Amino acid sequence: MDKPISFARGAPSLDIIDVVGLRGAAEQAFENDPAGLTAYGTSVGYPPLRRWIAERHQVEPERVLVTNGSMQADAFLFDALVEPGDCVVVERPTYDRTLQALRNRGAEVRAVELEHDGIDVAALERLLAAGASPKLAHIIPTFQNPAGYTLSVAKRRALVDLARAHEFVVFEDDPYWSLRFAGETLPSMLSMDGDTVVYASSFSKTVCPGIRVGYLIGPVDLIARIAKLATVTYIAPSMISQGIVYEFCAGGALDRSIETVKGALRERAQTLCEALARELPDARFEPPEGGYFLWVDLPRGTDVSALFTAAVERDVQFVKGSDFVLEGAESSLRLAYSGVTPAEIEQGVKRLAEAYAEVVAGGRSRDTAGVS
Amino acid sequence: MDKPISFARGAPSLDIIDVVGLRGAAEQAFENDPAGLTAYGTSVGYPPLRRWIAERHQVEPERVLVTNGSMQADAFLFDALVEPGDCVVVERPTYDRTLQALRNRGAEVRAVELEHDGIDVAALERLLAAGASPKLAHIIPTFQNPAGYTLSVAKRRALVDLARAHEFVVFEDDPYWSLRFAGETLPSMLSMDGDTVVYASSFSKTVCPGIRVGYLIGPVDLIARIAKLATVTYIAPSMISQGIVYEFCAGGALDRSIETVKGALRERAQTLCEALARELPDARFEPPEGGYFLWVDLPRGTDVSALFTAAVERDVQFVKGSDFVLEGAESSLRLAYSGVTPAEIEQGVKRLAEAYAEVVAGGRSRDTAGVS
Repeated sequence: MDKPISFARGAPSLDIIDVVGLRGAAEQAFENDPAGLTAYGTSVGYPPLRRWIAERHQVEPERVLVTNGSMQADAFLFDALVEPGDCVVVERPTYDRTLQALRNRGAEVRAVELEHDGIDVAALERLLAAGASPKLAHIIPTFQNPAGYTLSVAKRRALVDLARAHEFVVFEDDPYWSLRFAGETLPSMLSMDGDTVVYASSFSKTVCPGIRVGYLIGPVDLIARIAKLATVTYIAPSMISQGIVYEFCAGGALDRSIETVKGALRERAQTLCEALARELPDARFEPPEGGYFLWVDLPRGTDVSALFTAAVERDVQFVKGSDFVLEGAESSLRLAYSGVTPAEIEQGVKRLAEAYAEVVAGGRSRDTAGVS
Repeated sequence: MDKPISFARGAPSLDIIDVVGLRGAAEQAFENDPAGLTAYGTSVGYPPLRRWIAERHQVEPERVLVTNGSMQADAFLFDALVEPGDCVVVERPTYDRTLQALRNRGAEVRAVELEHDGIDVAALERLLAAGASPKLAHIIPTFQNPAGYTLSVAKRRALVDLARAHEFVVFEDDPYWSLRFAGETLPSMLSMDGDTVVYASSFSKTVCPGIRVGYLIGPVDLIARIAKLATVTYIAPSMISQGIVYEFCAGGALDRSIETVKGALRERAQTLCEALARELPDARFEPPEGGYFLWVDLPRGTDVSALFTAAVERDVQFVKGSDFVLEGAESSLRLAYSGVTPAEIEQGVKRLAEAYAEVVAGGRSRDTAGVS
């Protein structure tokens, strides 16, 4: 049996995590602030980390709430703003767990097509003109999950203008922002309008996922409301995790870690694009400028469910495009290159190409059988 | 201004937290399992800790789910079992945040009197006979918060029998169990009936609160349902916190820490009881055998709200009894002795007695004024 290769999980491989830096940060944190680390703390987060995040984003600390990972930030925000039956705009495709979280709350989810430069703002405008009245729009603007695309500056401005005019919240879900390895950094929507935009990010991609530290930035009154909700939910997120993250950031390990991660992602993305072009020329994709993901469209009619099965038989995993939409995307897939080495990528794409060849051959013979 | 003394917060003072042991455990954890600590992990918890907890409680690991503190365990359980309008039985008095969490979910909360040997099971039986049909009964059986009382073995058995007969869940919320410094250890209700009882506990009182590691033990299918809910809420609790707790437990620091904490609590409880008997002879209370709290009843008609204000003026804090009930308890208060040294306790009770004298005198003069 071949060594399994997973393009499925959006997570970093261990070799690009600064474990030595984390150990050092832990030691430093217990040394510097044993009282702050071991006490209950508060639901807004470990104060030094809250201040550090506020400074990084140039906002007041009162606008920041640190959470047990940014999924928890999403959950609190949805709990605070979304009632059953409320309309919520999402990108199509979007992160599967966001879809699930919204459906679990009984939201009426409206998916708007994602283009290579981000959500189709004109389509959203038509939707609004036709009477849709969303409570919020969930947007992953940078190196989107699952597509890897980035929202252009013009569209960011247009989206914020629409949100102002139609009084909905833009939820800017931006965990991949610092992982740009090509092209130019774009301003956040938060920096364009701090009243209309609520921003979430996390340290999962820059420190490590197991630390579970994410955060939310929003208007002071909304953050205060969510802080109350967080208190009755779990009192506070781990103060020890947050103390470690704070020392990791303040001591400079974060910036070094980001460089390591970006270097590895650049190489992995390039290897993946080259391997696909060589081994699987039917694949259509946009070379990513950062982040973890590559979205691949195969020729219309390709049965990606069958490809998934054929790939698993070859010990290769990916996530089907259909998992990221309410319906459709049957000929697309998401490849995560964050957790695989270049050698694994080469090997994985070869196996994927074999699986594809088998599916296409099978499909043809089924078509032939149908015609005969 | 005097140094503030707080009998308000149910939290340990820093001097009884094993910070050196925590640092060592952190180092060990990063050394032994960097991959497990830094990866996303799963919503059921860090596997070695999950197994350790299962063994400690003599249950299968599949029945354990580790959470971001035990409040989060409560929240998940309530989300899984309690619909708006559902009847939930609580003790009177009970933990204020539990009351709030249940009210936030629209539960119909029925409070049953807490006696010195635990909830009044006969009263609960009458409630059930009168047609109440609770979904669950929330019980803090050992050194209850806020009262400090412990449910007797006979009542534990009776309660489990009632739950079986009337098909409700006993939620055994038991974070103080290992903090017994006098009297005999009692069996958990979980050990009496693992199908009817769902059990929660945490490491907040035995390791430290800031680590935010709690857990739930229940039937396999319920735990599996809650695991799904936890995944879409926050993916997983901090793996780093859990890795540190695991090493702290496995390396023997936990048992040493429990001895330290118990020794300090024994001394603090005794100092508090003696000081109250001496300085505030009107106070009625049951000397605790463990845990963090002492419930004090003052003579009927004592205005504890006024006492609270008079105490704050003397830099002493406590929590009013009325915070722990739906209505009533106006002449009672909760004193937490976990976070104060014996010297602070002596000083704090002196100030409390002064405040009490002032309130009693004020009450008298107000009565006189009213009569004149």
